[in-house]
Amino acid sequence: MIRVTIWNEFLHEKIHKAVSDVYPDGIHAAIAAGIGEADLEIGTATLEQQEHGLSEEALNRTDVLIWWGHMGHEKVEDAIVHRVHQRVLDGMGLIVLHSGHFSKIFKALMGTTCDLKWREADEKERIWTVDPAHPIAAGVPEHFTLEREEMYGEHFDIPAPDELIFVSWFEGGEVFRSGCTFHRGQGKIFYFRPGHESYPTYYDGNVLKIIRNAVRWAAPSGAAKPMRGNHQPLEPIGKR
Amino acid sequence: MIRVTIWNEFLHEKIHKAVSDVYPDGIHAAIAAGIGEADLEIGTATLEQQEHGLSEEALNRTDVLIWWGHMGHEKVEDAIVHRVHQRVLDGMGLIVLHSGHFSKIFKALMGTTCDLKWREADEKERIWTVDPAHPIAAGVPEHFTLEREEMYGEHFDIPAPDELIFVSWFEGGEVFRSGCTFHRGQGKIFYFRPGHESYPTYYDGNVLKIIRNAVRWAAPSGAAKPMRGNHQPLEPIGKR
Amino acid sequence: MIRVTIWNEFLHEKIHKAVSDVYPDGIHAAIAAGIGEADLEIGTATLEQQEHGLSEEALNRTDVLIWWGHMGHEKVEDAIVHRVHQRVLDGMGLIVLHSGHFSKIFKALMGTTCDLKWREADEKERIWTVDPAHPIAAGVPEHFTLEREEMYGEHFDIPAPDELIFVSWFEGGEVFRSGCTFHRGQGKIFYFRPGHESYPTYYDGNVLKIIRNAVRWAAPSGAAKPMRGNHQPLEPIGKR
Amino acid sequence: MIRVTIWNEFLHEKIHKAVSDVYPDGIHAAIAAGIGEADLEIGTATLEQQEHGLSEEALNRTDVLIWWGHMGHEKVEDAIVHRVHQRVLDGMGLIVLHSGHFSKIFKALMGTTCDLKWREADEKERIWTVDPAHPIAAGVPEHFTLEREEMYGEHFDIPAPDELIFVSWFEGGEVFRSGCTFHRGQGKIFYFRPGHESYPTYYDGNVLKIIRNAVRWAAPSGAAKPMRGNHQPLEPIGKR
Repeated sequence: MIRVTIWNEFLHEKIHKAVSDVYPDGIHAAIAAGIGEADLEIGTATLEQQEHGLSEEALNRTDVLIWWGHMGHEKVEDAIVHRVHQRVLDGMGLIVLHSGHFSKIFKALMGTTCDLKWREADEKERIWTVDPAHPIAAGVPEHFTLEREEMYGEHFDIPAPDELIFVSWFEGGEVFRSGCTFHRGQGKIFYFRPGHESYPTYYDGNVLKIIRNAVRWAAPSGAAKPMRGNHQPLEPIGKR
Repeated sequence: MIRVTIWNEFLHEKIHKAVSDVYPDGIHAAIAAGIGEADLEIGTATLEQQEHGLSEEALNRTDVLIWWGHMGHEKVEDAIVHRVHQRVLDGMGLIVLHSGHFSKIFKALMGTTCDLKWREADEKERIWTVDPAHPIAAGVPEHFTLEREEMYGEHFDIPAPDELIFVSWFEGGEVFRSGCTFHRGQGKIFYFRPGHESYPTYYDGNVLKIIRNAVRWAAPSGAAKPMRGNHQPLEPIGKR
Repeated sequence: MIRVTIWNEFLHEKIHKAVSDVYPDGIHAAIAAGIGEADLEIGTATLEQQEHGLSEEALNRTDVLIWWGHMGHEKVEDAIVHRVHQRVLDGMGLIVLHSGHFSKIFKALMGTTCDLKWREADEKERIWTVDPAHPIAAGVPEHFTLEREEMYGEHFDIPAPDELIFVSWFEGGEVFRSGCTFHRGQGKIFYFRPGHESYPTYYDGNVLKIIRNAVRWAAPSGAAKPMRGNHQPLEPIGKR
Repeated sequence: MIRVTIWNEFLHEKIHKAVSDVYPDGIHAAIAAGIGEADLEIGTATLEQQEHGLSEEALNRTDVLIWWGHMGHEKVEDAIVHRVHQRVLDGMGLIVLHSGHFSKIFKALMGTTCDLKWREADEKERIWTVDPAHPIAAGVPEHFTLEREEMYGEHFDIPAPDELIFVSWFEGGEVFRSGCTFHRGQGKIFYFRPGHESYPTYYDGNVLKIIRNAVRWAAPSGAAKPMRGNHQPLEPIGKR
């Protein structure tokens, strides 16, 4: 059983009718309903909950954290960001969606600005699978189309991903590295581009399949925790 | 259920008593006994069987192929190598062990000489986990020791691995990239260094755990098979 | 001084007026004229020359080999391919252009089919720089457009490149990893997509700049040649 | 001409006679003297200078910054760290030496703890070249030995490096990824392990050669600065 926590800042849905029309119970609820399967135990957390719903206890019982944020990035407390960061390095999986590219936690893990080009123009996005060996691409066609999405364009200022799985084509002439994996410490991270709040992206079957695959991929592997610091020799030194 | 075929050239065991003392039923039998668990359906194949035990039919019902070869590399027919190569590109996992670095199939997949330094001196090897986030390291300590092994030393002439999981230390002063992953086509490949025929390496719990983890990691992911060749436009061209 | 040999199969130009209209002296001559600068000593070689112009002596005085081939891949003798392969592993740089993706030498170095999608439709290609730190991108804008090119689309069946520098957008709806680096042995390889024989791509300033940058990047680095084979211990074994 | 600034916290040398005996004018001075060649314009900066010697102006005229720090990491002001970080993302090269693994700037760029094992035991280190195609390995033997160094051991908690060039063997039984490259934004980063303050490591010819090679490799490439933010379509949208 993989314990998943879906974190959503849950602000647009309360403010903009255009958003709540699409996600009446919030983006987190739509994703939770969409990815649910027998091997996943799914909970949610939001910005305005105490400790943003991310207490030590809540994180300790989370195997994979999904992160959606946008207008509220600056409202996330640094201490909570630090706590999530530490948990990722200790093995918790992290899936960062769409505008989460600018979240404090993603920027802290990447070490770069995570900046990019963007445009809202009811634009077609076509997502191509460039690593068909990867488990996150399981059951995903070689390409699929989202009829209307926000455009994100290169240069996307991230470290070269460990694995590049998906690349997007946009109607207006841009490309984007849309599905990227990273290992950091004992934790696995997947960034996945689609999901603007005003489009029904999180009801798309392929998008949901990819997120579900990513959850299983990102679950902790259970390697031994490395020891750090002053280390006794395992072999004799200077006695030969 | 993952269908595993363990291929062993099975020559040393018939010729050298020192080897058959260690592996009386062959290296393949020792690995089969050692990695067996409920989710694995394990078979074996050897060089001197018809088509080296690797008929089209046998390969088609194999999800992950484990390869051990050494003195018989040149006896493996090119047509069979080509067949295995194609199956890997189509998604079959491949785990290449120890002296398999010089097998025709590994060299064909790597595109390099796969050459290295070596020495037989009853030497201690210590294997360090350098990617503790990786599923192949699940349950593996941060380091473990094989009291006597053949030394393999850098430079190991392979492409930079997609992921480097284990690095070996040798008593005589060398290091080696001992656990390396590669994606090729829809297939996943893991090279794992230990396993000289005259040492009881394939009875070591950590070695067996790593091979078992690798089998699960290398099992086909089931992404859509890419279409190739002449492709019709998905969007209108030059009509704007 | 970097010694460059530009290899072109030089067949289309002799057969198709549409091609010789664009490249009257051959693609190799256009590239040679276009990339010429004071630090480059440039020669050419073609398929129908003796040993395809790639004698041992010719290769030994080549630091970087540029390869353009298409309809004549099968006419390149295996022994010459083997010779070029060996020289790359020994440090010669190799730049593979466009339809060279299907050349024997590129397939042998990659270990994959190198297959892809394609279409000839007088189509717009836009090339995006996704690694602006890379020397091959020096002086290149963040994107530039080729008004008419042949389309190449994903999935491109290559190993994950060591570095991905350029990604192409195509008018008809596809994307492509267009600028990819690989290290193999002591040699450096750059694959660069543009350059269909019927379009004036090799007169484009950005295309020429990228090829020139790649030549400088791919020139041999001069690291020590690794020793192979049986290796004496550098430290005492088993005497502790 | 590449403008190099060598930054050294310059504390141990003032406090510990054992260190000033080895580096009477400071580690920075030894490196400056050791790597000097005609194409390098070398300056130095230290912690106790105003703005740690790293004013906007000083950084703007620096192409490659070399960083050595240890006991004074916490004394480096966050605003200066932020300034250096920004300059790296804008293209300045950064070479982080030895105990600089724990500097604020390296940790901020990596996004991980950068923790490791260590031991001071007058121990032998042997450095192996695992990527002999890399320009940082130019003229470097396939292995070389430092008779006495501090040990650093895996697991080294960094992102998987873009390129792994050197791996160290230690007498006491550990290994370490000692030469690692990273691209971040438009900047190139090289981490190089050797250089404990109490050993004469920065007089070693191979160590100096590697640092000099790294300076040339890390110098800004001069790609176009990517545009960020709201982006106008390059192609018509939704009008087809």
